[in-house]
Amino acid sequence: MAETLFRRLALIGIGLIGSSVARIARERGDIADELVVNARTQATLDRVQVLGLADRVEGDAARAVQGADGVMLCAPVGAFAGLAAAIAPHLAPGAIVTDVGSTKMSVIRDVGPALPEGVHFVPAHPVAGTEYSGPDAGFTTLFQGRWTLVTPPPGTEEAAIVRIEELWRRCGSMVERMEPAHHDRVLAIVSHLPHLLAFTICGTADDLEDESRQQVLKFAASGFRDFTRIAASDPVMWRDIFLNNREALLEMLARFTEDAQAMARAVRWGDAEYIEDKVERGRKIRRSLIELKQA
Amino acid sequence: MAETLFRRLALIGIGLIGSSVARIARERGDIADELVVNARTQATLDRVQVLGLADRVEGDAARAVQGADGVMLCAPVGAFAGLAAAIAPHLAPGAIVTDVGSTKMSVIRDVGPALPEGVHFVPAHPVAGTEYSGPDAGFTTLFQGRWTLVTPPPGTEEAAIVRIEELWRRCGSMVERMEPAHHDRVLAIVSHLPHLLAFTICGTADDLEDESRQQVLKFAASGFRDFTRIAASDPVMWRDIFLNNREALLEMLARFTEDAQAMARAVRWGDAEYIEDKVERGRKIRRSLIELKQA
Repeated sequence: MAETLFRRLALIGIGLIGSSVARIARERGDIADELVVNARTQATLDRVQVLGLADRVEGDAARAVQGADGVMLCAPVGAFAGLAAAIAPHLAPGAIVTDVGSTKMSVIRDVGPALPEGVHFVPAHPVAGTEYSGPDAGFTTLFQGRWTLVTPPPGTEEAAIVRIEELWRRCGSMVERMEPAHHDRVLAIVSHLPHLLAFTICGTADDLEDESRQQVLKFAASGFRDFTRIAASDPVMWRDIFLNNREALLEMLARFTEDAQAMARAVRWGDAEYIEDKVERGRKIRRSLIELKQA
Repeated sequence: MAETLFRRLALIGIGLIGSSVARIARERGDIADELVVNARTQATLDRVQVLGLADRVEGDAARAVQGADGVMLCAPVGAFAGLAAAIAPHLAPGAIVTDVGSTKMSVIRDVGPALPEGVHFVPAHPVAGTEYSGPDAGFTTLFQGRWTLVTPPPGTEEAAIVRIEELWRRCGSMVERMEPAHHDRVLAIVSHLPHLLAFTICGTADDLEDESRQQVLKFAASGFRDFTRIAASDPVMWRDIFLNNREALLEMLARFTEDAQAMARAVRWGDAEYIEDKVERGRKIRRSLIELKQA
């Protein structure tokens, strides 16, 4: 067995991602000798103990990180500034702080400055998920065949980066480094905008007059049904992602809206060729995804 | 075994829906004594014979309907006006003409007036599908647990309607009658708009500068991936649906765009409560769908 990566790893937050990491760490044994799990509520901590996800649960984030050589922030990104301030005085010298947030510029802004000298900071984002959340939602194969994007700020120690990359490889993930601002733009189009559209169409449908709304539910054809699956995700997590990737998300939405208006114009004026061309393009992209085994 | 519904049923077009009906008819034996299949290309007709989907294949739609007491139009709705004109002089007295198109006002406009006196016209729409198309795509369980909406124009003979409803029940579908204009509005929001959004976002992503586009494909998180599945559908079919449900689709898109702009404004101004509320609403709709077993 390879050398264990951390003596003591503290998971701050234990939702879908955190509990998947915990399950993998328990199963493999070479990620951490000791696993400490922190959550906001006693109910979640109790559940973590029932599920056997931790060596120790800890209701206070500051106490959870004490003596840990690895700290992984797995809470919604909107909580990161407060968490960083709370844990900073208690971090062990040489510890590596990482995270799993879906926005990286905000994490670098909110966490980086709070950390003391001698603590390493390696932001990362496992691009994997389901519409389920909470400590029961995790599973050990979540990251298999998926990418984890590692977005270290300039000047981060290489050894610390490599340790986090190895952690994600051991979780089954493929790993790539990316510049944080670029990460936020790519994720805005592949994940944040699709979710915004899915949440929005559910609201649009819900606003229809009563009879239609019932029929929307009753006759949900494959299109709408797939959108609601995306839209079933955790409200606080997504609220935080939208607010913390504002610029890139608004830009992608603006581009999308222009394109949707162009499509509306083609529908209004009967431009069959334009419409067919756009649908054909969707097909091509789907085929590319299948070739890349991301579908 | 129940009495067979048609002596000779002619399927005009043999894509996902048509070939699923054919497979079910072959398997059950009580839908038609004889199955005639018409398609535009010889390649498709050859394939139908290899798959054993028909008693007889026929390259000419007019010849295909001769002597048939049931005719089901399974082509893209944009082809219906031409098909109706071509088959009308050859329809047997008392025959029932039905269709499976996703837009019903256009079908009533394009097909109804062309049919001779004494021929019954019962438009219908099985709300079921996958992203695959063609005679190989069909399967016998496609309609199970799904609704077929039957939208007869005023004055249609009740016995003809009942026969088509029975056909869909034998195909495994649940059946409901609906006013055609109402059908088009409901389908605009549950199916046509989701598809328009999915096609559009694929184009928006495809227009990104080269490096980002590659990464869109590489890191397709679950959101974008699900959209591309919807977007993989048949271009001609969807072009025709958009053009033939123009008013309802443009209205739903306008409502959606207002809602998306309201969301954009909330993101720009940091209105956390608004965003969380909209995401929560998506969840509720998903839960309703699961309760209704449509998810």
